[in-house]
Amino acid sequence: MTRTRRAVALLSGGMDSATAAAIVRDDGTLVHALAVDYGQRHVAELDAARRVAGALGLADFRVVKVDLAALGGSALTDDVDVPKDRDELVLGCDIPVTYVPARNTVFLAVALAAAEVLDADAIVLGVNALDYSGYPDCRPAFLDAFREVSATGTKRGVEGRPIEILAPLLEMTKAEIVRRGEAHGVPFALTLSCYDPTRGGTACGRCDACRLRARGFREAGRSDPAGA
Amino acid sequence: MTRTRRAVALLSGGMDSATAAAIVRDDGTLVHALAVDYGQRHVAELDAARRVAGALGLADFRVVKVDLAALGGSALTDDVDVPKDRDELVLGCDIPVTYVPARNTVFLAVALAAAEVLDADAIVLGVNALDYSGYPDCRPAFLDAFREVSATGTKRGVEGRPIEILAPLLEMTKAEIVRRGEAHGVPFALTLSCYDPTRGGTACGRCDACRLRARGFREAGRSDPAGA
Repeated sequence: MTRTRRAVALLSGGMDSATAAAIVRDDGTLVHALAVDYGQRHVAELDAARRVAGALGLADFRVVKVDLAALGGSALTDDVDVPKDRDELVLGCDIPVTYVPARNTVFLAVALAAAEVLDADAIVLGVNALDYSGYPDCRPAFLDAFREVSATGTKRGVEGRPIEILAPLLEMTKAEIVRRGEAHGVPFALTLSCYDPTRGGTACGRCDACRLRARGFREAGRSDPAGA
Repeated sequence: MTRTRRAVALLSGGMDSATAAAIVRDDGTLVHALAVDYGQRHVAELDAARRVAGALGLADFRVVKVDLAALGGSALTDDVDVPKDRDELVLGCDIPVTYVPARNTVFLAVALAAAEVLDADAIVLGVNALDYSGYPDCRPAFLDAFREVSATGTKRGVEGRPIEILAPLLEMTKAEIVRRGEAHGVPFALTLSCYDPTRGGTACGRCDACRLRARGFREAGRSDPAGA
């Protein structure tokens, strides 16, 4: 009997990471959910991640706290004026103020530790290079560099069976993500994409993330069940 | 006036990371000290790191807590029988039980975030490939892979001035590290290398780390002021 393939899915609470996890789950992979609490302003994101993991029927859900707030630096977790109502044409053309230093590197490092502990074969994350090309750590070259870290810096890697880094949404448009998520039963109503939600978890509807999400649903000919 | 070069030094409390930090400090670099608390069993290590940072006159000292214990997995932070009295010939030939999954990847990821927040030009760490060749994440290929992560996954990297990864001890013998540390005024008496110290921070003298340290002082013709 062959062993069931296992993966660690990084969940942010948003629709992209939920869709990525659902795609890998439907390959017959046993998916462990992992959220990293880096001191983000909104605990609503972690709540959304937990609900998504439950609704998708993932194997379990862990939260690892990384106290990046100890570094200081307003860009991490302090009050940053989240840009609102930006022209869609400028989305993704610069490094936005919402960029969190080395965030995906920290997320992937923690996921790599989790994958080694859980003897998982892969890490899956919802990065997307089209809409988020302004973020260095959402680009293909970064993922390839981290694949080399996995291949060289872990026990499994040096044994010749490195932990894979799966980014199934990397080249998809937001409309494609909506359609793929729908096909895989992603509970979009539970997801939260907003950079600046209310304390209760209501999306602002005006930040870059909300605007990209709205455009995705619109172009897919769907309405967003989260209502944002 | 040119800007003073800045670095983030990862300090473990041991003699290697202290020596690496001192070497870079004596280049005229302003060194910020960083310790990562990953739930290690011995708070004595963090105490040692703090004392080392003070004695070396580093710019400041930060601790970032990464709750890897939330992953479970005994290899991380639970009780592991630390091997004692192993033959020196086998040191460094296998992946030891004291290997912590993806530890240096997590450390470097947090240091990369710190370097971006502090606008530091480099990260310095005390990894050594000769005595610790059993640890995948102490090898040159791993450091090169992480350099590519720095170059591709950060704001500074895509701007063409990537944060450097400095490992000045990489190819040194332990005896060379003793001599270099001495030349740079490293307070060896304050450092703690042991994998299994007492609660009060006294080294066991019998684990791999203690034996490598003792051999280094012996081969350098010095006595260890920490007395282990």
